Amino acid sequence: MSPQEAAAKIAAQNDIEALPASGVWTPVLMPVDKDYAIDVARFLQHAKALLDRGCHGLALFGTTSEANSFSVSERKALVEAAFESGISPNQVMIGTGCCALTDSVDLTRHAVSLGCKKVLVLPPFYYKNMSDAGLFRSYAALIDRVGEPELRIFLYHFPQLSGVPITYGLVELLLADFPGVVAGLKDSSGDWNNTAGLLERFPDFAVFPGSETYMLKGLNSGGAGCITATANANAGAIRAVYDAWRRGDDTTDSLNEGMVAVRTAIAEYPLVTALKYLAARFYSDPAWRAVRPPMLPLSDAEGADLLQRLEDAGFERP
Amino acid sequence: MSPQEAAAKIAAQNDIEALPASGVWTPVLMPVDKDYAIDVARFLQHAKALLDRGCHGLALFGTTSEANSFSVSERKALVEAAFESGISPNQVMIGTGCCALTDSVDLTRHAVSLGCKKVLVLPPFYYKNMSDAGLFRSYAALIDRVGEPELRIFLYHFPQLSGVPITYGLVELLLADFPGVVAGLKDSSGDWNNTAGLLERFPDFAVFPGSETYMLKGLNSGGAGCITATANANAGAIRAVYDAWRRGDDTTDSLNEGMVAVRTAIAEYPLVTALKYLAARFYSDPAWRAVRPPMLPLSDAEGADLLQRLEDAGFERP
Repeated sequence: MSPQEAAAKIAAQNDIEALPASGVWTPVLMPVDKDYAIDVARFLQHAKALLDRGCHGLALFGTTSEANSFSVSERKALVEAAFESGISPNQVMIGTGCCALTDSVDLTRHAVSLGCKKVLVLPPFYYKNMSDAGLFRSYAALIDRVGEPELRIFLYHFPQLSGVPITYGLVELLLADFPGVVAGLKDSSGDWNNTAGLLERFPDFAVFPGSETYMLKGLNSGGAGCITATANANAGAIRAVYDAWRRGDDTTDSLNEGMVAVRTAIAEYPLVTALKYLAARFYSDPAWRAVRPPMLPLSDAEGADLLQRLEDAGFERP
Repeated sequence: MSPQEAAAKIAAQNDIEALPASGVWTPVLMPVDKDYAIDVARFLQHAKALLDRGCHGLALFGTTSEANSFSVSERKALVEAAFESGISPNQVMIGTGCCALTDSVDLTRHAVSLGCKKVLVLPPFYYKNMSDAGLFRSYAALIDRVGEPELRIFLYHFPQLSGVPITYGLVELLLADFPGVVAGLKDSSGDWNNTAGLLERFPDFAVFPGSETYMLKGLNSGGAGCITATANANAGAIRAVYDAWRRGDDTTDSLNEGMVAVRTAIAEYPLVTALKYLAARFYSDPAWRAVRPPMLPLSDAEGADLLQRLEDAGFERP
């Protein structure tokens, strides 16, 4: 079978193109100035570079964008600036899940009003041990209030940070009442067994591992691709693995191995600060290191160690 | 020694009146209507009843008020309504700590602009494992931006919900740079050892256990009183224990025992939903049971069980 035939077979099996989103998506770093305000110019430059390097889409205001460290109005202003600059709403997924239902509704309506139908929605994450029925009620109220049939919600499962897992039971409840609108899930748990269980239980659902480490495993089981922070530093290599898989290339596994080594090196440090350190380095622009509190930038010593680890992993800078 | 002399001695030892806040404070339940919007009229009625029943002060928009389930503008509007209705800003502590520094600054400036200088401040709680230095930077930025020397910040330690503990090291850093302004701490950990350690290390600091269960132990070790959700149902009894302690009454311990039994009965259920159930019961007003998602109201069966437990604990309804 030719590579083209293999790709066609895999694509048909996985039906990736039928998913509401697929491929390599990057949650974009959010540069800040010395007053911790969003630096729109640096953001736009970086976001466009990520698309140029092969990202299929951008996630704005997920964890990597320090989303929850910005107010609703700061988040709206950046989204407007992104679309005004020519980034297509179709290539963007906006993080709109807040603790307050009213904030989630506000941000989601705003996204939809600008033509962006794909939103990545954390559960309300302050109160813990909420029941699936309670969390269902939160997502249901959001969907009802936004009232947009073309809305595509990607559930955001990141229990280490949110403290509020998206259980299989909750997904079942939501798919029963909102098929189509509840379109997928980003699994940032880092737990392959959880991802595998989602892929098995919910075949028409766009399940994105939250790391490229599990992208290939996911794709081979019907996954949608990945939404991964480390694409901020290594988008080209991640896209290359994705494309090799689509073509059914023999190089897929070895490319994947190199890509995972780079991910592993970066993940030795807190991702946002490490990735901002790398952006500062690659753009020769120290301002990139700034993070909003409560984060702290990587120290010089940590940064030097990170660069060494990347070199050892065979990383080629973009 | 007469009760008066004993009280004077204890008061001198503990110097309660020199603290920026002391006594029995209630984080007030936030009633919502069928659209989950804040029901201002029911709130005002309840808040005033709590003061009538003996609460020294009210905490607005802590955990019990479902604070993080409301937007900044919803929170501001309620605070304005409270003060317009005649509740004194001096009797109020406003929860202003959000994930976003800009939101915390906005809410704190708003409180100060209305004459309320006491604020209860959660750390930014989405990102976990932040360093003390990073959390310090967050509180420091808040204090600098608000720029009010009379601001009194009460740190809010509730690791079970926030996932972000206020360590002794963080308190030390803050007291070193912001003595006076960083005025106290609400310890909702439920861990008496943590409270005891705070009382020992930081003697001029207003340390409030987050439950009346530890109020008496706290008072006997220099604590400030308590800030406790269950005062929404049992304010009079909690105040009676506090007053008995102030007078050095022989009845203090037995009153305390009865009060703790009631707390224990209520705490069998999630506090906010249980307390709203009880409010609905005591005010003969079923609308009180409503909670904003992701919470769910107590079921009828759970409510009946709660009432039985309260009866068994010898609870007298207000």
